[in-house]
Amino acid sequence: MEQKQQPNGELEWRINLGDGSSSKTLVPEAGITRRAWQGLKGLIESFLVKKVWRFLKKAWDLGVDDPRIFFHCLKVGIALSIVSLFYYMRPLYDGFGGNAMWAVMTVVVVFENNVGASVCKCLNRICGTSLAGSLAFCVHYLASKSGHKFEPFIVGTSVFLLASVATFSRFIPSVKARFDYGAMIFILTFSLVSLSGYRVDELLDMAHERISTIIVGTSLCILVSMLICPIWAGGELHALINRNMDKLANSLEGCTGEFFKSNGGLGESNKESNEKLLGFKCILASKANEETMAKFALWEPAHGQFNYKHPWKQYLKIGASIRSCAYCLEALNACINSDHKIPESIMKHVSDTCLRVSSNASSVIRELAETIKTMKRSSTIDVLVGEMNSSVQELQEDLKSLPQNETPIIDMIPVLTCVSLLIEIANRVEAIVDAVKELSKLADFGFRDQDKSNQNQSKSDGNIMQEKRRVEETMMALQRV
Amino acid sequence: MEQKQQPNGELEWRINLGDGSSSKTLVPEAGITRRAWQGLKGLIESFLVKKVWRFLKKAWDLGVDDPRIFFHCLKVGIALSIVSLFYYMRPLYDGFGGNAMWAVMTVVVVFENNVGASVCKCLNRICGTSLAGSLAFCVHYLASKSGHKFEPFIVGTSVFLLASVATFSRFIPSVKARFDYGAMIFILTFSLVSLSGYRVDELLDMAHERISTIIVGTSLCILVSMLICPIWAGGELHALINRNMDKLANSLEGCTGEFFKSNGGLGESNKESNEKLLGFKCILASKANEETMAKFALWEPAHGQFNYKHPWKQYLKIGASIRSCAYCLEALNACINSDHKIPESIMKHVSDTCLRVSSNASSVIRELAETIKTMKRSSTIDVLVGEMNSSVQELQEDLKSLPQNETPIIDMIPVLTCVSLLIEIANRVEAIVDAVKELSKLADFGFRDQDKSNQNQSKSDGNIMQEKRRVEETMMALQRV
Repeated sequence: MEQKQQPNGELEWRINLGDGSSSKTLVPEAGITRRAWQGLKGLIESFLVKKVWRFLKKAWDLGVDDPRIFFHCLKVGIALSIVSLFYYMRPLYDGFGGNAMWAVMTVVVVFENNVGASVCKCLNRICGTSLAGSLAFCVHYLASKSGHKFEPFIVGTSVFLLASVATFSRFIPSVKARFDYGAMIFILTFSLVSLSGYRVDELLDMAHERISTIIVGTSLCILVSMLICPIWAGGELHALINRNMDKLANSLEGCTGEFFKSNGGLGESNKESNEKLLGFKCILASKANEETMAKFALWEPAHGQFNYKHPWKQYLKIGASIRSCAYCLEALNACINSDHKIPESIMKHVSDTCLRVSSNASSVIRELAETIKTMKRSSTIDVLVGEMNSSVQELQEDLKSLPQNETPIIDMIPVLTCVSLLIEIANRVEAIVDAVKELSKLADFGFRDQDKSNQNQSKSDGNIMQEKRRVEETMMALQRV
Repeated sequence: MEQKQQPNGELEWRINLGDGSSSKTLVPEAGITRRAWQGLKGLIESFLVKKVWRFLKKAWDLGVDDPRIFFHCLKVGIALSIVSLFYYMRPLYDGFGGNAMWAVMTVVVVFENNVGASVCKCLNRICGTSLAGSLAFCVHYLASKSGHKFEPFIVGTSVFLLASVATFSRFIPSVKARFDYGAMIFILTFSLVSLSGYRVDELLDMAHERISTIIVGTSLCILVSMLICPIWAGGELHALINRNMDKLANSLEGCTGEFFKSNGGLGESNKESNEKLLGFKCILASKANEETMAKFALWEPAHGQFNYKHPWKQYLKIGASIRSCAYCLEALNACINSDHKIPESIMKHVSDTCLRVSSNASSVIRELAETIKTMKRSSTIDVLVGEMNSSVQELQEDLKSLPQNETPIIDMIPVLTCVSLLIEIANRVEAIVDAVKELSKLADFGFRDQDKSNQNQSKSDGNIMQEKRRVEETMMALQRV
């Protein structure tokens, strides 16, 4: 009999001679199993459970940050329940192959996050189905008249040709922007109908039922997405542009402040200012989002403050001019991160004026954001632009009167770059002003009350609080990124 | 009898007294009709026909520019024809409600422009369908056991809950990037199966057929998209990054050249240089495209030069660092457009060195493009980076020795901004170098032949021709934009 004792006191293996109880020989095995199990459990606990938990936590936070996601999910559930109830109760319903599935399918496929996208898909689905259905019916009819020999040939050729042409149309930018889904549904329906069974009268009945179930599904979708906590693509775009303006204003002030303060040693707490001044990065990346929203907003009916023909495309122009400012800010931000010391002589001369230019430009941007938010023309914007321009002028005067002899040019480069970018930003802010003015003309914005403009002072305190809140939001968004 | 003669000699109206032939009294009417018709025809011709013609012309040009679009369309046609033939010949086929439609539907819905997107959708469809099908089967079984009273309740609740949860999952970024389509198919299949007819054995048969038809459809899609003129998302991303590098190099040289030449009056033909230097705008807008391609490239098997685990995500980093250069170029471009005169004294001092920095940086970028294109590590990159850095150093020396007394600082601002941005761009080019080196490490690039590096000189002539062709392509693309 051999025994081997492990350092931890557990038996590793044992050989029994004679009829020792076999249960004892199993001990080591059980030990291994237990340890293996414990190891596995540990692994599962430490790795998988934690990972799953972190995933769920993150997902939950996503919903908490934007509760409209929860609402959207509930809306999908509600729409599906309604459509299934509708068909559950109808005697028409006859299992899988029945037409009920087309209503369910429509709801699942067509229901989108915002009203515009849902409407776009609904109309595309209805039009694509009807157009393809009627065309396929004609082809089917022709084919059935031409005898059994030619039928597969005619059907096959027409499917090949129309599918190819419709696929090609999906690459044309103007079609892709509006009718991409419709083109796909066209191919789908055309293929299904023209390849389907042989009797024409059957086909008509089916087409009728199919179209009516699709209409039921799409109407339900549109109703649910419009009536229960609607998310409008237009409203999203409006808010996005507004947010981007705020971020631009904050970043601009933050960057300039950081540039001049990091020399003077007056910087705020590093983390806060860092997050404040990096808001422009969101602007750089928001082009695709803006375009998607503008595309869907065109499909939306009048809602809230927006008419049916609200000039959504103008928002894209505003977005582009905001972004062109953000490019300059990106370059300005590089100045901050470079090792630089502003020579005392220049610091004295320009820092105040530079800070004034940036704060004036930020005021202009904030006033534009307010214009867009309230959809009322601003009475003070021209004054603010004038102030911005005069501070730019002042900055240029300051530069003219700079003493030249004291500092080598190489030391002046960072501050002069900063100055030049600030002047360029002020130029580009004027482009935003023009774009917003164009919007207020196109969308026929009203005027703000005179009273209100007199009470500006008392309002501005509230504005500061609001700004603060917005900055906090941006920070949180950046932390998530 | 009254007559009125129009200036153009045509009768406007005529009143016949007595029995003058009525045909004559009809002349004016016919005249109006004819003219109305001609007007209408003119309108149709000038407006509609022209518009349609222009649309078709544009669409055709789109295909001529990128013939792969035509190929893709033909591929869709071929795949659909094959799948329909397959089912046309099988006795299994029983019209609309049959399972044939699931194969056709799969082909239409799943076939995408590039292999990665098709594979992604195929796998999502198969997994989503199987998972949802088995889950729905369990629910269906449970519900059928619990009696007729509870059945609708159980089914309804499960549809509501699972649809909501699956919809929520589509908002989680990691799920959205990979399994968005799968989640939708999950909801669709789960709803259809659990709401479907009542007999469990029927359901199993159907599930079997459904899954097999979907597998037929997806395999066909994958085969056709891989075998006939395949478009690989990975290859597209690779080429896009390569193109963007070329554009960056051209724009950089173009912008700097323009800045210094527009003073010296040595500018090339305005249009050509304009198009050359605006290439960076394409880079600013290509982020979304890069991300989409990288997302799909992850689904692609090994192909051509690329292994299965090719580090596609590294391309995104390279793309980001290219874009960060482009931001600086955007600001630099603003300097060109500003009214500026470079003082003679500075012009003499820095223009040559600035042009050298920009051409050295461009050489580095072009060498990196070559590295990516050939997938071979460059033997000269470190030398080129060294040259770039030494020219930057030289520029800084030049600035130190600048005479200060002659020119007012305000006149120096544009040129100093340009200099500072050039230095920043050279910095950022080093970030591209690092990112590309990281890529060559991750993807295990080989080394270029020594012979080849010795023959660099003779090759560079060919490169120049190639560059020229690329620039021409960019120009044409910009003209279309």
